[in-house]
Amino acid sequence: MMAELPVVFSDILKACDRIAPYLHRTPIFTSSVADELSGRKLVFKAENLQKTGSFKARGALNAILSAKERQPALPGIITHSSGNHGQAVAWASKCVGLPSTVVVPAMVPEPKKAAIRGYEAHLVECGSKPTDRYETCDKLQKENGYVFIPPYDHQDTIAGQGSIAVELLEQVPDLDAIIVPVSGGGLSSGIATAAKHLKPDIKSFFLLRRKGKMLTECFKAGKRLWPNPPQYLKTKAEGIATQQLGNLNFTILSQLAEQETFEMSDEEMIEAVKFIMRRMKLVVEMAAGASVSAALSEKMKNMDPAIRKVGVILCGGNIDVDHLPW
Amino acid sequence: MMAELPVVFSDILKACDRIAPYLHRTPIFTSSVADELSGRKLVFKAENLQKTGSFKARGALNAILSAKERQPALPGIITHSSGNHGQAVAWASKCVGLPSTVVVPAMVPEPKKAAIRGYEAHLVECGSKPTDRYETCDKLQKENGYVFIPPYDHQDTIAGQGSIAVELLEQVPDLDAIIVPVSGGGLSSGIATAAKHLKPDIKSFFLLRRKGKMLTECFKAGKRLWPNPPQYLKTKAEGIATQQLGNLNFTILSQLAEQETFEMSDEEMIEAVKFIMRRMKLVVEMAAGASVSAALSEKMKNMDPAIRKVGVILCGGNIDVDHLPW
Repeated sequence: MMAELPVVFSDILKACDRIAPYLHRTPIFTSSVADELSGRKLVFKAENLQKTGSFKARGALNAILSAKERQPALPGIITHSSGNHGQAVAWASKCVGLPSTVVVPAMVPEPKKAAIRGYEAHLVECGSKPTDRYETCDKLQKENGYVFIPPYDHQDTIAGQGSIAVELLEQVPDLDAIIVPVSGGGLSSGIATAAKHLKPDIKSFFLLRRKGKMLTECFKAGKRLWPNPPQYLKTKAEGIATQQLGNLNFTILSQLAEQETFEMSDEEMIEAVKFIMRRMKLVVEMAAGASVSAALSEKMKNMDPAIRKVGVILCGGNIDVDHLPW
Repeated sequence: MMAELPVVFSDILKACDRIAPYLHRTPIFTSSVADELSGRKLVFKAENLQKTGSFKARGALNAILSAKERQPALPGIITHSSGNHGQAVAWASKCVGLPSTVVVPAMVPEPKKAAIRGYEAHLVECGSKPTDRYETCDKLQKENGYVFIPPYDHQDTIAGQGSIAVELLEQVPDLDAIIVPVSGGGLSSGIATAAKHLKPDIKSFFLLRRKGKMLTECFKAGKRLWPNPPQYLKTKAEGIATQQLGNLNFTILSQLAEQETFEMSDEEMIEAVKFIMRRMKLVVEMAAGASVSAALSEKMKNMDPAIRKVGVILCGGNIDVDHLPW
């Protein structure tokens, strides 16, 4: 029997209503060449075309709007992230009319800082240890009464990301599976919650792990085996470099996701990014390449032929065009 | 008084009906950053997302369908082109169920040949002189009774490309100008014909020329000043490397296009391609970068402020991802 889950479908429906006025309903792309290569019908959800260039805009906006509903006079927003979540929080705060502070390690390259400042966030630099960002964030949050928006381990963030599956299953109701890249698990747990509710017979729901992510091990053991403090995996796919799943995310995925996972190398992700650029004329980041390479992998080819139509989440397009990973 | 033009609006409407079942109605993209940079509202027509990755699919398909209407038993199609037109003719022939032959210089890189073969065309190699391809094509055409599909200097090709402006002005009726890259002039003369018919008050209609294209000189003189045989300009933007306009294209553009032209360098086009990749997450080729760089140029900034809303044609997305021009 399933334990009660921390996010339920009605949370996701509320998130859909809350964020819809600000966001793109991202389009679906298909490719006959991709279908031939995979032997199935692949449907690509272009979250790289979402505001801020990634799905993170959904979760951040839902979390900030929800915080504002609970506390109308809140003085501002804070988070830590040098990547897509940082941009998403800065953008979403601006939408809502709230000042935002984003904590990033000082060593982060200038273009990433500029992207966050471009959405008018106040940038605060910290040291390079994984714990530095938490401590800086915590201190500023307490001093200023800001609301902290976590990148994935939070009900509102998860519910926001879940809106992708609601849209996708409206656009393509007869999906048999969805392939999602996994980092902290915000995207995957949101999509799992919505997809399994809307379509309990959705045959498979795959996760991707990088070598060293220990996802299969944790699923099998039924508990968190990851070391603390959080570790980062060695990969060019910075969007999926976090080793640990969040607590809520692990609880959800343990129950709703397929236990079978894919392990993709940087080289496979690079080839997949190039494939999407060549065939669909879309710019995607390495984490999106991960789901594409899984969809085109030998492992996928050998799976149950009843999995006919597969959704592939192109989670973002924020890749450094000046320094591509090939 | 205007002389009678070789392509009229009803040709373009017929082309729209003829090709619609096979092609994408390409979407419109906008960017608040692009608007800020240009000081106007820019509307990008994403022909890079068209079948075969460029607008050329429209003209080629209209020409082949029209040829088949006139001659139902025609044995096959032939053209010469190592680039977008070659792919477009191969693809369109396959759509219509006709065999196609594409003549390309032997020196063309293998990936380009593979792209054409990918659409099941028969590839014939020729020498590297500009006249070699004409001669080879001519010989095979006569021997086999094939119909030759010219890349730009033909009513049906021009009418097909004109369908872009019909769509664009349906999508954005209040455009004041359209910016189009110019090579042989198929795209620009088609768009000029449709846009000026649908909106005679369309305030401006700009062309782009590369250094050495002699467009302003020919417009001013009112006659063709280009040397024969056709020359190719030195540029990384292979889609707009042809120096001469076609005969029909020159006739149309002399009457319908603004005489003012933009001259863009390879460096400016490269920056524009990167801009579109970063901001819109779209892969575009250098020729598309030409129109974007014109839209964002100082010259454009200094133009009549009554030109408020400008259409920018992203003509194609076939760029070599393995060897980007930066």
